[in-house]
Amino acid sequence: MTDATHDPALRSWVASANGHAEFPIQNLPLGVFTPPGGGAARAGVAIGDMILDLAAAPVAEDIREAAAGGSLNAVFALGAGPRRALRERLSLLLSDGGGQRGAVEPHLHPMAGCTLHLPARIGDYTDFYVGIHHAVNVGRVFRPDNPLLPNYKHVPIGYHGRASSVRVSGTPVRRPKGQIKAPEAEAPRFAPCERLDYELEVGIWIGPGSALGDGIPVGEADAHVAGYGLLNDWSARDIQAWEYQPLGPFLAKNFGSTISPWVVTPEALEPFRIAQPPRPPGDPAPLPYLLDPQDQARGAFDIGLEVLILTAAMREKGIAPHRIALSNTRHMYWTVAQMVAHHASNGCDLNPGDLLGSGTISAPDTGGFGSLLEASRGGKEPVPLPSGEVRRFLEDGDEVILRAHASRAGFASIGFGDCRATVLPAN
Amino acid sequence: MTDATHDPALRSWVASANGHAEFPIQNLPLGVFTPPGGGAARAGVAIGDMILDLAAAPVAEDIREAAAGGSLNAVFALGAGPRRALRERLSLLLSDGGGQRGAVEPHLHPMAGCTLHLPARIGDYTDFYVGIHHAVNVGRVFRPDNPLLPNYKHVPIGYHGRASSVRVSGTPVRRPKGQIKAPEAEAPRFAPCERLDYELEVGIWIGPGSALGDGIPVGEADAHVAGYGLLNDWSARDIQAWEYQPLGPFLAKNFGSTISPWVVTPEALEPFRIAQPPRPPGDPAPLPYLLDPQDQARGAFDIGLEVLILTAAMREKGIAPHRIALSNTRHMYWTVAQMVAHHASNGCDLNPGDLLGSGTISAPDTGGFGSLLEASRGGKEPVPLPSGEVRRFLEDGDEVILRAHASRAGFASIGFGDCRATVLPAN
Repeated sequence: MTDATHDPALRSWVASANGHAEFPIQNLPLGVFTPPGGGAARAGVAIGDMILDLAAAPVAEDIREAAAGGSLNAVFALGAGPRRALRERLSLLLSDGGGQRGAVEPHLHPMAGCTLHLPARIGDYTDFYVGIHHAVNVGRVFRPDNPLLPNYKHVPIGYHGRASSVRVSGTPVRRPKGQIKAPEAEAPRFAPCERLDYELEVGIWIGPGSALGDGIPVGEADAHVAGYGLLNDWSARDIQAWEYQPLGPFLAKNFGSTISPWVVTPEALEPFRIAQPPRPPGDPAPLPYLLDPQDQARGAFDIGLEVLILTAAMREKGIAPHRIALSNTRHMYWTVAQMVAHHASNGCDLNPGDLLGSGTISAPDTGGFGSLLEASRGGKEPVPLPSGEVRRFLEDGDEVILRAHASRAGFASIGFGDCRATVLPAN
Repeated sequence: MTDATHDPALRSWVASANGHAEFPIQNLPLGVFTPPGGGAARAGVAIGDMILDLAAAPVAEDIREAAAGGSLNAVFALGAGPRRALRERLSLLLSDGGGQRGAVEPHLHPMAGCTLHLPARIGDYTDFYVGIHHAVNVGRVFRPDNPLLPNYKHVPIGYHGRASSVRVSGTPVRRPKGQIKAPEAEAPRFAPCERLDYELEVGIWIGPGSALGDGIPVGEADAHVAGYGLLNDWSARDIQAWEYQPLGPFLAKNFGSTISPWVVTPEALEPFRIAQPPRPPGDPAPLPYLLDPQDQARGAFDIGLEVLILTAAMREKGIAPHRIALSNTRHMYWTVAQMVAHHASNGCDLNPGDLLGSGTISAPDTGGFGSLLEASRGGKEPVPLPSGEVRRFLEDGDEVILRAHASRAGFASIGFGDCRATVLPAN
C-alpha cells in the first residue's frame, strides 16, 4: 500500500534531495554514521546529500533512544509499526511546507564529511541461493551434467556464512590465500587466489525475528524484515572448487563480504512490489508452509541491479566505472518471505540484525551475469573493458561497485547507494 | 609442560574436590553462573561440588573485572598469560595449606543451587569434520561408492553453523520440522523429523583471535584457544539428506546445538597431550601452513569420550543412563591448531567467544560410533537398550548425555562435566 510518503510530487527543503538519484524524500533509508566533527556512532537517515541524526532529531522517544546505540539493532527490533511511524514523521519533518525546518536543520550533516559504518551488529549471516539463473550458470561450471539439483525448486537453498568478516562499503578486501588444486594437478598447493570473483546480491536485514522453536509463518514473514541493502559476497572460485564438498563453501567466502551502508526500508520499496513471476510449466508448487496468496501476489520486487568495475588502469586514465552487468530482483526464484519462513521453519531463531543474502542474482541474458565466473564462462572467455584490458577474474586494484535503483511510472525513483570495495593484493 | 598445579597429590580444602570425577583441584574449568540467591550472571570456577565466584574472589584485578560481565568473552580475550596466572593463583587459593581459605570460602556457592549459562556470547560458530572414522561412516551412507572425498586428507573440512541456536547443557531440544523426501517419493513433504540424531563433538572456544586479513600461523594457533567443552551437534538426517547439496547442511543442524557449561582450559589438559597419531602410509603430508613440529609432537589429546542415552521409559523404570558409545579425541585426523590455522589462513578473522566444533568423533570400532546414523547403519540396524527398547534414531523424551574424561598414570583424572539435553516433541 502506497501513501502520501510515496507521492512523487513531494519535495524536501533539503534541496539536494529533490531529483536525487538515490535518496529523495520518498526513500529515507537508515544507516549508522559518525558526523564530520567526530563523536559516537549513531543512526541516521539519508536525505539527498545529507544525513539526519536520528538520535537528536525531533522523532519519537523510542527511536531516538534506539538510534543512539551505535547500531541499528535496537531500531530493527522495534519492528514495522514504529518504523512506519518514523517514516511518516520524517516525511513531514523533511518536506517543503512541513514547517519543521528550524527544528530539524541543526541535526543535518553533509554525508561527504561523515563516516558510514556497518548498519548493525550482525548476529548470524545466512546466504541463500535464490537467483535461479545464477544457480543454473554456476551449476553448469561445477557440475556440467547436473546444473540444477533436484531440491532447488522445492527448497529455498541456503547456508550459513561468516558474520564477523562482513564489512561496510568502502572497506578494501584482501585477496585470500588458500588451497588450490588444478584439475590436472596431483595435489593442492597453498597460494593466493587466482580466481577472485564478486557476487551481486541483495542483503536482507532481519527485524524482530523469532524465538527458538517458534517459526515464522510465511504470511507473517515480511513483518520480520527491517530493510534491504546490497551485498557483494566475494568468492574465491579456485578455493571453492576444491573445498566445497561435502559441507559447502567455507574459506572461499569468509575472507570478506561487503554490505552497503544504507538500509532501504520495506515501506520505501512498497511501490516496487510485484507478483512473484509465475513458475515455468512443470515446476512444482511450493509446499504449503512456503505459500501465501498475498506473498505470491505482492512478495517480489522490481528493482534494477548493476555491477560496475573500475580497474587501476581505468582510474589512472580517468575512465569512468564500466557497467558489466544489469540484472533485476525479479529473477529471484523465491520471495524474501519464503526465505525467512523457510529459515525459521525448523525452529531456528532469527534475531534483529541478522543478515540474509539473496544469493547471486543474474538475469537470463548474457548482459546480466551477477558474477565473473558466469560472465567469463568459468574463466574461458575474457570480458572486455573500455581500457582495453580484459578480465576473466578480478585483479588487484579492481574496484567492484554494486548499485540498485527502483523505478516505476508515477513514482519517484529511489536508490540503494553504492556497495563498493577495492581488491588489495594478498599478504 | 606440566607444573605444580598438575601434581596428583595436591588436595583442596573444598572436601568434595578431592577424588571428584570431574572437577578436582587439578581441573579448575571456567563457566558462567548465577548464584543460588540470584543476582547477575558472572564467571566462576568449578571446584568439586562448588563454584568459586571469580568476580569476587581474591584474584587479579583484570580477571575480576572480566569475570563480572556475564560471559567469558572478556576472560577469553585476555589470552594464555593471564589465564595461566589465574590457574596458579586458584591452585594456591583452593589448596590445602595455601592459607587462603578464610578469604576464599565466602565466595563459594554450591553448584547444585546455581544456574549455569552459556559460557560466552558466540560470535561465529564453525563446525569442522575432523573425525575421520565418522567421515568414512557417514560418507558411506550418503555416498556409498565415494565415502571419503579427495579433499579430506588435504583440507580440514569445515563449514559455518548457526551461533544463535547454541544452548547450554540442560536446555531441551525441540524436534524440528522440515522438508523430507523419501528416496522413492516423487516430491518432498513438510513434516516432523523422523531421523533425529546426536553428534559427539568437542567444542573449542577461541581466545584472542586475529584481525581480518592477518591469519594465524599453525605454530601460534594454540595460543588462540581459550578452552574446550563438549558439543552435541543435533542433526535431522532426513532434512539433511534432501537439503545439503550443493551448499551444505542448513536447517538439518541449526535448530539447536548443545554445549557443556564448563570450559576446560588448555592448561588443565596439558598432561593429556599426545603426538598426532601418524598418518597411514599413502596419506599425503599436510601442506606447510598446517605443519608445525611442536604441534605434530604434542598437538593431539588423549581424552575419553562417551555418549549415554536415557529414554523416558528408562527414566520411569529407574534404569540408569546407558552408554552407547565410547570414543577418544585421538581419532581426530587434524589437530585443533591445524583447524585454527586453516580457518584463519585466508584472512578470516577469529574473535574471543567464537566456537569451533570438532565434528563427530567416532572410534574405528563398532562400540565407538559418535552418532546414531552410524550405530544403526543409517537406520537399518536397531540399537538395543537395557529397557528392552531399541533406537534407530532418537525419540521424544530421549535424553542424550555426552561425557569426557582425561586420565593418565601419574596424574589426577579430570572431567568436562555433562553435556545433556532432552528431546521435546515437534510443535
